[in-house]
Amino acid sequence: MKYVFGVDIGGTTVKMGLFTDTMELVEKWEIPTDKTDGGKNIIPDVCGSIKSKMEEKNISSSDVTGVGVGAPGAVDDKGMMPGGAVNLGWGPLNLKELMEKELPGIKIVAANDANVAAFGEMYAGGGKGYANVVAVTLGTGVGGGIILGGKLLAGSTGAAGEIGHMKVDDEETEKCNCGHTGCLEQYASATGITRLAKRRLAEDDKPSSLRNVETIDAKAVFDAVKEGDEVAEEVAKKFGKYLGKGLANIADVVNPEIFVIGGGVSKAGEMLLGFVEPEFKATAFPPCKGAKFALAKLGNDAGIYGCAGMVLS
Amino acid sequence: MKYVFGVDIGGTTVKMGLFTDTMELVEKWEIPTDKTDGGKNIIPDVCGSIKSKMEEKNISSSDVTGVGVGAPGAVDDKGMMPGGAVNLGWGPLNLKELMEKELPGIKIVAANDANVAAFGEMYAGGGKGYANVVAVTLGTGVGGGIILGGKLLAGSTGAAGEIGHMKVDDEETEKCNCGHTGCLEQYASATGITRLAKRRLAEDDKPSSLRNVETIDAKAVFDAVKEGDEVAEEVAKKFGKYLGKGLANIADVVNPEIFVIGGGVSKAGEMLLGFVEPEFKATAFPPCKGAKFALAKLGNDAGIYGCAGMVLS
Repeated sequence: MKYVFGVDIGGTTVKMGLFTDTMELVEKWEIPTDKTDGGKNIIPDVCGSIKSKMEEKNISSSDVTGVGVGAPGAVDDKGMMPGGAVNLGWGPLNLKELMEKELPGIKIVAANDANVAAFGEMYAGGGKGYANVVAVTLGTGVGGGIILGGKLLAGSTGAAGEIGHMKVDDEETEKCNCGHTGCLEQYASATGITRLAKRRLAEDDKPSSLRNVETIDAKAVFDAVKEGDEVAEEVAKKFGKYLGKGLANIADVVNPEIFVIGGGVSKAGEMLLGFVEPEFKATAFPPCKGAKFALAKLGNDAGIYGCAGMVLS
Repeated sequence: MKYVFGVDIGGTTVKMGLFTDTMELVEKWEIPTDKTDGGKNIIPDVCGSIKSKMEEKNISSSDVTGVGVGAPGAVDDKGMMPGGAVNLGWGPLNLKELMEKELPGIKIVAANDANVAAFGEMYAGGGKGYANVVAVTLGTGVGGGIILGGKLLAGSTGAAGEIGHMKVDDEETEKCNCGHTGCLEQYASATGITRLAKRRLAEDDKPSSLRNVETIDAKAVFDAVKEGDEVAEEVAKKFGKYLGKGLANIADVVNPEIFVIGGGVSKAGEMLLGFVEPEFKATAFPPCKGAKFALAKLGNDAGIYGCAGMVLS
């Protein structure tokens, strides 16, 4: 029996998974992310945890097909992170090489965390069975991962799929975290939806159940939509208009078979797609508009599945 | 000595090239495109011309590494054209298989004409030396071709790189040829620039040399810019704003090393890039904005070079 490890390094915890080489999950666990000292303990901690698990399960190096690792920053196809990882305190480093030093003789595959989660959804989740997938993560921000011909697209500086910063509004005056204005993330992320809702509520006095909600967030908006709240529906339509248009532009560029929508916002379920698909179909160039839509299935485990899948594919 | 043929099927003529397998152009020629009877003579005509040339040059089938062919329609990676080619009168057909029947024993590689021209620029033109290239053709319309890791991206329905129909303006009221509004092609193609210029001239009476020009086209606009005409410069800036923004959104998706700008509009030369690059850099997500810009070098021969290059790569 051969084994694969998947390691998804996040800003708070590192999610880890041990899989068989037929992608059965044997065990998953987490370790805290130690961001002290510029995050210099993270890689030794991760590799130590892998070595302990190998010992515990009596797995030798030769039984390990490889370790896949995802990190929150741009990672090129040689494992280099030219911009480091701000959320981990890392400056520029080569993630693959550093892991190889700690785990001699074991194959390491490294990629950006959003890309890896995308790959997981393609390999074992909402996009299973497709080879040309755009995975969209609607969380605090908007991330993306692009899989073409079954392979993850890294891009020339490891920044392919950074779709959250596509410009979708020329009139926007508020700045995105990136310093630009009108980024997709400003409308389609969890925080973007909150912003759209607050803006809409400030426009007039139209009654809405959202006015009585303590915290207006994406969940509150979609819950109100389900109850038939008109203001919430306007907000959801605006969200769908921006996201549908953004995805249509992506479809014209890479012409995928399917979009897989994940992240916290996607917990609203299938109804979410009902706001996005019509705008997508109205905007995409006809030969590109047959792309399907599906919800992500693996949730927070997409990263570890994707890391393991990268090793096996 | 081995040989390769490149065949670029256009609506009026078929451009053909005979190359050595080290990409030396031996000879290029054209035959008319016979669009009668649903274009059913085109493939036999093309293959007949290849056979005549082989006879003339005393080249046997075993001396031919392959024939690359580009056609004006979506072509998937099996050579199928699910939507045919409107400009040739073709319904759905498999270009690769039909060519193989006419040229038994010779390897055929088929792709979309704009994609093939893009590949030519990557292989032997303005993008030579790069593996991740977005080629942009600013002609009557706006076409594109995307090369990632040295390979042409076809897309799931053969429509990758159809960047002319990305939506870049939400306020547009006039329709694009595709039936949508606000497509990049409406601002950045030769006809788009003419449209922008006529719109600008109709806005007020500001003096401009363009008011005395018989035919206002892209050349007239850029010629006037060179002479310091303020109205023409406004038009060029608007063109650059739309194209720069569109290319920035593409950069966020596929993160290329270089954009290669070709087509009739690119005859304006390096000054054209001066209108596009600043808007690109202001809009692209920081890790993606290092992409270089270059002008296409092969002109109308990009297609035959690209066809030959596809066979050899």
